[in-house]
Amino acid sequence: MTSVTDVTDLGSVQGFQVYDTTLRDGAQQEGLTLSVGDKLAIAGHLDDLGVGFIEGGWPGAIPKDTEFFARAARDLQLRTAQLAAFGATRRPGVVAADDPQVRALLDSQAPVVTLVAKSAARHVETALRTTLAENLAMVRDTVRLLTGEGRRVMLDAEHFFDGWASDRDYALEVVRAAAEAGAETIVLCDTNGGMLPPQIADAVHEVLHGTGAKLGIHCHNDTGCAVANTLAAVDAGATHVQGTLNGYGERTGNADLVTVVANLVIKLGRPVIDPARLAEATRIAHAVSEVTNVVAYSRQPYVGASAFAHKAGLHASAIKIDPDLYQHTDPTGVGNDMRMLVSDMAGRASIELKGRELGYDLAGQGEVLTELTDRVKRMEARGYTFDAADASFELLLREVVDGQRVRLFDVESWRVQTDARGDEKALSEATVKLVAGGRRVVATGEGNGPVNALDHALREALVSAYPEITQLELIDFRVRILDSAHGSDAITRVLIETADGTTSWETVGVAANIVEASWEALVDGVTYGLLRQGVTPR
Amino acid sequence: MTSVTDVTDLGSVQGFQVYDTTLRDGAQQEGLTLSVGDKLAIAGHLDDLGVGFIEGGWPGAIPKDTEFFARAARDLQLRTAQLAAFGATRRPGVVAADDPQVRALLDSQAPVVTLVAKSAARHVETALRTTLAENLAMVRDTVRLLTGEGRRVMLDAEHFFDGWASDRDYALEVVRAAAEAGAETIVLCDTNGGMLPPQIADAVHEVLHGTGAKLGIHCHNDTGCAVANTLAAVDAGATHVQGTLNGYGERTGNADLVTVVANLVIKLGRPVIDPARLAEATRIAHAVSEVTNVVAYSRQPYVGASAFAHKAGLHASAIKIDPDLYQHTDPTGVGNDMRMLVSDMAGRASIELKGRELGYDLAGQGEVLTELTDRVKRMEARGYTFDAADASFELLLREVVDGQRVRLFDVESWRVQTDARGDEKALSEATVKLVAGGRRVVATGEGNGPVNALDHALREALVSAYPEITQLELIDFRVRILDSAHGSDAITRVLIETADGTTSWETVGVAANIVEASWEALVDGVTYGLLRQGVTPR
Repeated sequence: MTSVTDVTDLGSVQGFQVYDTTLRDGAQQEGLTLSVGDKLAIAGHLDDLGVGFIEGGWPGAIPKDTEFFARAARDLQLRTAQLAAFGATRRPGVVAADDPQVRALLDSQAPVVTLVAKSAARHVETALRTTLAENLAMVRDTVRLLTGEGRRVMLDAEHFFDGWASDRDYALEVVRAAAEAGAETIVLCDTNGGMLPPQIADAVHEVLHGTGAKLGIHCHNDTGCAVANTLAAVDAGATHVQGTLNGYGERTGNADLVTVVANLVIKLGRPVIDPARLAEATRIAHAVSEVTNVVAYSRQPYVGASAFAHKAGLHASAIKIDPDLYQHTDPTGVGNDMRMLVSDMAGRASIELKGRELGYDLAGQGEVLTELTDRVKRMEARGYTFDAADASFELLLREVVDGQRVRLFDVESWRVQTDARGDEKALSEATVKLVAGGRRVVATGEGNGPVNALDHALREALVSAYPEITQLELIDFRVRILDSAHGSDAITRVLIETADGTTSWETVGVAANIVEASWEALVDGVTYGLLRQGVTPR
Repeated sequence: MTSVTDVTDLGSVQGFQVYDTTLRDGAQQEGLTLSVGDKLAIAGHLDDLGVGFIEGGWPGAIPKDTEFFARAARDLQLRTAQLAAFGATRRPGVVAADDPQVRALLDSQAPVVTLVAKSAARHVETALRTTLAENLAMVRDTVRLLTGEGRRVMLDAEHFFDGWASDRDYALEVVRAAAEAGAETIVLCDTNGGMLPPQIADAVHEVLHGTGAKLGIHCHNDTGCAVANTLAAVDAGATHVQGTLNGYGERTGNADLVTVVANLVIKLGRPVIDPARLAEATRIAHAVSEVTNVVAYSRQPYVGASAFAHKAGLHASAIKIDPDLYQHTDPTGVGNDMRMLVSDMAGRASIELKGRELGYDLAGQGEVLTELTDRVKRMEARGYTFDAADASFELLLREVVDGQRVRLFDVESWRVQTDARGDEKALSEATVKLVAGGRRVVATGEGNGPVNALDHALREALVSAYPEITQLELIDFRVRILDSAHGSDAITRVLIETADGTTSWETVGVAANIVEASWEALVDGVTYGLLRQGVTPR
C-alpha cells in the first residue's frame, strides 16, 4: 500500500501555516533593495528556519521577481517550505485568463498563489474604481482559474479591518466569495497597521463564526502591536500567520516572524515549527541581515544581540544564584546566549560572571575581584564604558591578575597632522615612534582622517616585529562626546572594533583630546589582536 | 475663596499617571551611558512631552544619580512633571530610618519615591534571602517612613507576574501591604518581559478586584509585546503606565512610552497627555537620541523616520487619491511627516514650511523651492542632516535665494597637528591662513583637541576684521560615524552648537575626514554668528 499525502498538508504543521513574506512585503522597507541572488539566499535561510511558505515576489509586475521564480524553479531545493507567488485579482472588466498579470502567476510555476483583493468597500470604489459586485466577481474568477490550473490559492484581504469597521457585510462577502471559489486560506490584513489586539480578536472571531473559512493574519507594526495583534488573531482562531524576518517592511515594518513563532512555540506550546529549527533562529536572523545589509537591531526580541544581556547590579547578583530569576526563557531555545555587561551599575557579582564568560575564574580571588571592580567603577566615572568593549575589559582584567599591563611595544611618541588648502579635501599624515621586538622604529602613515593615518603608521611600525598584524583590520570607529555642556571641556570616548577574519573585538579610549582617545583604543585593539594571533608578551 | 490642589493630583490627568523611567531603567540599555548633564537635558525633553513623572535614578546607590537629584533640585524647572527617586525597601533586619539607602531617598528631596519590592515568593527566598513575613514588613516600614516624611510613594512590585503564577496569595499580600501602608500606586512589573497580553490582563483584573489598590504597569519587550501588554493592563483597569523614550532599556528594552501614549490618546481616545505636547513627540524622541547617541530606529512606531514613508507603487497611487487610504493616523498628531520615497513630491512642503519658520516666504518661488529641495535631498543622501542644523539650512537657503554663498572670509588653508610623548597628554596646535576684511592673516591656536585648536586659530584670525567674534562661543560638539561597515570608508558627520549669549544655533559638516567635517561646521557656525551680530557680507 502506498502512503498518500494530501497536497494541502504541505507547509502546514497540524493544520497551522507559518507564511513568510520577507521577499515581497519585507522588501518594501525603506533602504532595502534585494537582488535576485539576495532573494535566493534569503529563501534558503527561511527554509532552514522551517517556515511553511515563502512568498517570493510579484512575477509579471516586477521583472526581478519574474526572474526570481524562474531561477528558484531551477536552482532552489527547499526542504520544508512551499514557494508562493503574489499577485492581484484580475482587472475589472476583463476575463481572468486574458489578464497578463494573472497569466504571469501561472507562468511562475509556484505551487501556491496568494492573491491580494480589496475587502474595504471604500477602497474598491475610490482606489480600484469599480463596483462592489465586480470586485466580488474578480475574486471568484481569479481564484477559480488558478485552482482549476492546480494551484493552491490564498487570498490576502487587504485593509480588511478598516473594511470590517465601516462595512462589515461587504467584508464578509469578500471572504465568502474567495472561500467558495476554492481559496484555502483567507488572510485578514491590517494593511495600515493601525489596529490594536482587541479589535483584531473581535473581527477574527466573528469572521470565523460567520464564514467557517480557514483564516490567516497579516499585521504591520504601526501601533507597536504587530506581534500581539498576530497572537490575538491566533487566539481567536486564525491558523495561518504572516510575517517577515527581522520585521522588515514598509513604514514600521511587518510582524517579526521569529518573534511570533517563538511566542507560539515557547510561550503558548504550539509546535508550529520544529524546535530544533527554532534553535537556529539567531544565526538565521543575523545571516539575513548580512544579506540585506540592514544593521541588526540589538534590542530585537529573542534574537537581538542585547536580548539576553544583563547590566544592572541588582540583576547580576540574582543571576549568579539562578539564571532563571532574570530570564524569561532559555536563550539557547532560539540560538542566543546570555551575556553580562560590565558597567558602573555593576557590582562584584557581574564582574565575576563576566570573568567566567571570558574564561577567568575569579570566584576564589576576593582581592583581585575587589580591585577590578574598583578600577572599572573609577574608569567608568571618567567616561569609559566596558559594556561593549570586552577586549579592553579583558586587558584590564589581565593587568589586575598579573600585576602588570600587557605591553607588546613601547610608544615613544606619536603625532598626526591634518591639512587642507581652500575647499580641497583634507589629508592626514601620522608619525609613530616606538620600540618593538628590541628595535626602535619610526614609521609614517597617511589616511583620510587622523585615526586612519595613525592606524596605518602603527601597523607600519609593528609589521617587522609582528608580521601577524597584517591579519588585523580596523572595521568600526565610533565617537561619543561626553558631558558636552562646554565644547572645549568635553571628554571624548572612542570605541574601535578590530577584526582578524575569524572574529572581532571592541576597545575603548577616553581623553579630552579625541585623537588621544582614538590612539588609546587603537593600541588596545592591536594588542588584543596580536595576543589572539599567539604573540606572547615579553 | 482660594483654590486647593490635592498634591496627589500633580502629575495625573483625570487620575491617570504617565510615568517615565528613561533615566533609571532606560539607562540599563547596553551601550547607553548617561552623564548628569545628559540626564538633565533628557528630563527637560520629558517635561516638554508632558509626562506626569520622571524617574531620575537611584540616589545613594549610584553616585551620578545622587548628583543628578542635587543638580535637579537647583537647576531644573519642570512645568508638568514630578521628579521621582527610585530605591529599594529597607534591608532585612534593620530599621528603615537607619538604612542609608532609604535615607538617601529622603535626602534627594524628590517629591515622589518609587520603591522596588519583591513580590514573587521565590525571589524573596533565593535572591533576597529573607522570610516572606520580613519582606512584607520591609514594604510596610519603608512606605510608612517615607509617607510620614511627606513623600508620595509608589511601589514597583518586581517580578509580579511570575509571582502571580506561582504564589498568587503572597503576590496579593505584597500589594495589600504597600497600599495599606500608604503607597498611592502599586506598579505590577513584568521584570523578565516574558508575558503576553492575556496573562497581563487577567492578573491586573484580579488584583484590582482583590485589593482595590490603584495599579500601574511596567513592561519589557522580550516577547515583542511591551506596548500591547501595557495597553492590556490599562484595559483591565490599570491607571498608571511606565515606559521609556525610544523604548530604551535592558535586553530588548522597556515599553516605548511615546507609542503607549500615542495609542492611548489617538487610538483609544484617552487624553493622558495634552495632544499639543504629543504633537512634539517626533522632535523630542529624536532630540533624546542625539543626547544618548543611540542611533534612532527608523521603523519606530509613530516617530520613526520611516513610520509614515511609503514606497509601494500600489500604495503611492492610492495615496495620491486620498492619504487616509494608506495611513493609520495623521502623522502631524505626533509631529511626524508623510514621506513618499523615490518621489520629488516629498520634502517641498516641509522645506517651504521650514523657510517660513525662518522668515523666508518661498510659496511663490517654485524654482527656488525645487532647487533647495534637490540640494537638501542630495546633501542628505551624502550624510547631512538639517533637522537639528537650522543655521546650516538657513545658509544654504540664502545661497539658493541669492545665487551665491555668504562668505565673510576666504580660507586659503588650514592645518592641525596633535602629538604626544609616551603616555603624556596629547596637545593640538592649529594654523589657519585666510583673507578677512581685505587683509591676509596667518593665525595659530592651541587646544585640547584638533577642533578646539582650530576654533582658537579661526577666532584669532578673524578678531581684527570682526571683533564681534569675541561674543561667540562653541558650546557643543557631536560626532556621528555614518555607514561604518569599514572603518576607513566611513563618513563622519559633525554637529556644532555655537552661542552668543542670547541664543544658540547648530551647524553641520560632513566628510570622510573628521577634522574636515568639523572645520566645515565651525566655519558655518562662525559665519552664522557674525551675521547675527550684524556683520554684512561684502
